[in-house]
Amino acid sequence: MTTLDPGIPAKLEFWFDLGSNYSYLSMMRIEALAERHDVAISWKPFLLGAIFKSFGWESSPFVLQKEKGVYTWRDMARQCEKYGLPWTQPSHFPRSALLPMRVALIGAEQPWISAFCKRLMQINFVEDQDINHSAVVDVTLTKLGLPAQEIIVAAQSEDNRRDMRAQTDEALRRGIFGAPTFFAGTDMFWGNDRLEDALLLAARKAK
Amino acid sequence: MTTLDPGIPAKLEFWFDLGSNYSYLSMMRIEALAERHDVAISWKPFLLGAIFKSFGWESSPFVLQKEKGVYTWRDMARQCEKYGLPWTQPSHFPRSALLPMRVALIGAEQPWISAFCKRLMQINFVEDQDINHSAVVDVTLTKLGLPAQEIIVAAQSEDNRRDMRAQTDEALRRGIFGAPTFFAGTDMFWGNDRLEDALLLAARKAK
Repeated sequence: MTTLDPGIPAKLEFWFDLGSNYSYLSMMRIEALAERHDVAISWKPFLLGAIFKSFGWESSPFVLQKEKGVYTWRDMARQCEKYGLPWTQPSHFPRSALLPMRVALIGAEQPWISAFCKRLMQINFVEDQDINHSAVVDVTLTKLGLPAQEIIVAAQSEDNRRDMRAQTDEALRRGIFGAPTFFAGTDMFWGNDRLEDALLLAARKAK
Repeated sequence: MTTLDPGIPAKLEFWFDLGSNYSYLSMMRIEALAERHDVAISWKPFLLGAIFKSFGWESSPFVLQKEKGVYTWRDMARQCEKYGLPWTQPSHFPRSALLPMRVALIGAEQPWISAFCKRLMQINFVEDQDINHSAVVDVTLTKLGLPAQEIIVAAQSEDNRRDMRAQTDEALRRGIFGAPTFFAGTDMFWGNDRLEDALLLAARKAK
């Protein structure tokens, strides 16, 4: 039996938080781009707020630094227009996303991870609704044909809470300081603006 | 006598600091891009350190925030490779640039502004040499065929020092919080990553 050498499959780690507006831009763009580059996505939800706390910050820099905050909403509107994405400036920011993030961790290697995350992003950044409610998560999972209550119970379990903390600790250890962040092997790229560069490097590394 | 309607000439304000590494990327790219978009550049040197001080910061966020600093040098190396620009990680950062910035203010509307600024950026970010010396500035101006001593005296004058402070105050008033920053009319764009977007808008506004 002969086999073609499949090579090393190209992979990009996508570290994101469902409360992060720039993660929204990448969440909506990454699949089509990854497919074009023949790169598999490794989904890595982590708690950005815990990273900020480790720096001694009580909130997002977009809240703490007024000038940057004002700019960010203008930038988001323009970037969404550029990418053809719907956008509503959130009336509350940053929104807590702990429960949906724990669900994302449960689903990270499941086929529904992308659809779930994109829907939550849409609720946060298009419909301007809070996302940290079990009802919101339940409806979203149910509409995807999934056993919502079972998943929510698993998401809230002590094991999964610990795994979420461990994943966030790993983010810190690897030098992540914002979201989204991408890894092509050990090469870190920060920000939606670097998604294309990160995918190019991931594809190149696999050849 | 008939005249063709010249329309509103397209203009982009380029706010920069010669000590800013991301300003280096834009400094080396902006002319070719602006020409392609038929946009005139308005050169706006301002003192980024004074902006940071107004936020209560004693240095660049790349120094104050260790994780971001580590990342920045990796990012710069990759960005320079992408753009085909030479790059040496500066052994001292951020470098004071007060004297050459004052000269840049003197030259902001002169035909030599670009050549002067690009040469200073090269000394800082390619040759890894300090730039805040009258000898460095003198040699640079002289090589451009300019009356170096005359310009340096004017740059150090009380009038020009005041103008430099006023320009930096204007940056603060207009909400600038980093460099490079671009303005297409009242639309602000922050960072080298937004140079293309800013030029597109400047060109569109002029039509």
